[in-house]
Amino acid sequence: MVKVALLGTGIMGAPMARNLAKAGFETTVWNRSNERAQPLSDVCSIATTAAEAVTGAEAIFTMVENSAAVVDVMFGSHEAVAANPSALWIDTSSVQPSVARDCGAKINRYLDSPVSGGEKGAIEATLAIMTGGRAEDFDAATPFLKALGNPTHVGPNGAGQVAKLANQQIVAITIGAVAEGLMLAQEGGCDPAAVRSALMGGFATSKILDLHGERMLNRNWKPGGPLRMQLKDLNNALEVANEAGLDLPLTKQSQQAYAKLANELDLPENDHSAYMRYLEALNPGKRFGNSEDLE
Amino acid sequence: MVKVALLGTGIMGAPMARNLAKAGFETTVWNRSNERAQPLSDVCSIATTAAEAVTGAEAIFTMVENSAAVVDVMFGSHEAVAANPSALWIDTSSVQPSVARDCGAKINRYLDSPVSGGEKGAIEATLAIMTGGRAEDFDAATPFLKALGNPTHVGPNGAGQVAKLANQQIVAITIGAVAEGLMLAQEGGCDPAAVRSALMGGFATSKILDLHGERMLNRNWKPGGPLRMQLKDLNNALEVANEAGLDLPLTKQSQQAYAKLANELDLPENDHSAYMRYLEALNPGKRFGNSEDLE
Repeated sequence: MVKVALLGTGIMGAPMARNLAKAGFETTVWNRSNERAQPLSDVCSIATTAAEAVTGAEAIFTMVENSAAVVDVMFGSHEAVAANPSALWIDTSSVQPSVARDCGAKINRYLDSPVSGGEKGAIEATLAIMTGGRAEDFDAATPFLKALGNPTHVGPNGAGQVAKLANQQIVAITIGAVAEGLMLAQEGGCDPAAVRSALMGGFATSKILDLHGERMLNRNWKPGGPLRMQLKDLNNALEVANEAGLDLPLTKQSQQAYAKLANELDLPENDHSAYMRYLEALNPGKRFGNSEDLE
Repeated sequence: MVKVALLGTGIMGAPMARNLAKAGFETTVWNRSNERAQPLSDVCSIATTAAEAVTGAEAIFTMVENSAAVVDVMFGSHEAVAANPSALWIDTSSVQPSVARDCGAKINRYLDSPVSGGEKGAIEATLAIMTGGRAEDFDAATPFLKALGNPTHVGPNGAGQVAKLANQQIVAITIGAVAEGLMLAQEGGCDPAAVRSALMGGFATSKILDLHGERMLNRNWKPGGPLRMQLKDLNNALEVANEAGLDLPLTKQSQQAYAKLANELDLPENDHSAYMRYLEALNPGKRFGNSEDLE
């Protein structure tokens, strides 16, 4: 059996490990706090150190919180790369493109391969997977990645992370589009729930109108995707834009809205669909929908 | 057989008339320039005046260019309403909400019922239909509307038109989101065509990413939806917002972009996916994709 390892068994990593095991790979997992890895013991081996987990693996997945955690696991206190430098390393975490390029320079075979689709996509193995790196490494990774969703090779190292930022940018602005459209509908005399239903099927159809539009109608601000993460992604997208000398006005406006929500309005843990609450703050006296706030 | 009439057999009206006939209604059509109605003669009766077309009809559809044309057909030189004041009048044109409310005040049984989905939706009878008016009139209209697509009752007269504006607003901003995301992807080192493919299936999935994203990659600016119409809709949406005392920042930014494209850059007949060309004008030296411009 082909051995794989997965480091970081959080909300995303745990179902991904389960899907690797289900696809027939001999899967070993490790997590910084070991007790979060234990529920996988029915289908995976549980290692007590990252170095132990990766030993003998052909492919090694990392799925951790941010750039600092990736660097710490790979090169810092956990020294995982040194324990298996010839393996194919596949980082599915969302980190800055510059960090992905650094990893690519330090690791023989490395792919930056962030995902979109959330916990649901991870469980159902329908993640959109955006991969940066060498074509031959992508080809070698494809059988593993297909156990998790739909992989696409988008460019050299760093490009996977840039594609993820583009994804997050489109998500953020589309949430704003839906919020502004539904608010206009309400204030213009429509039943906004009926408008959301009516629009599904026309050109305005999107996953955001469907899922986040419904959240706005229910004033369901429980994350989902906490808006502090949306803000982090928009900041990183604008950093890439600045490096490239690009002015992107809708992205800037969206970043300002999420910065206000996270800081001034102090709602960092609200779902990113709470752009609607930014509109309410901008327009005193306006309130969307009839529901109580769910937080 | 139940008699219906349709006034205005343009790109949208002609396939709609065909679908009414196909659903078993005895359909009479009229068009200001009679020769554009003639291709329907295999399934519809062709009237030479609007008043003749509507006589004896239970339900009367109008599908014309704008507010002025609606008023002219109904009350102006063509005096169609006077020829059948008791029929159910269903205006599927896109007009200002205030015009729809005026029509509602003047006509016994009137629905403002604009559509989304374009020529393809009209041909395939899959239009998203947003209807404003009395509930009993909507119920009476439903068998007719179902021959054209998926109708939803969104509120009183005017609400159908407001819902259409909300639709157009979401479309315009989402086009901007896709353009800014794909431009960032390209300038950040990705293959933007691969990124568009990768994102389909994740949270960024939308009809706009699919159809207009592909147009941007092909630099296919042939309309489709000419951006002067997108600008008109955004102006009308902002008028409704102003009347309601609403500040909608992404909508304003989008309006400014389309105004610049239509006026300063002199591209009013380009497809609305040409928001990408606004980004290029804003960022001298940047050009998206490798294709020649199709105009």
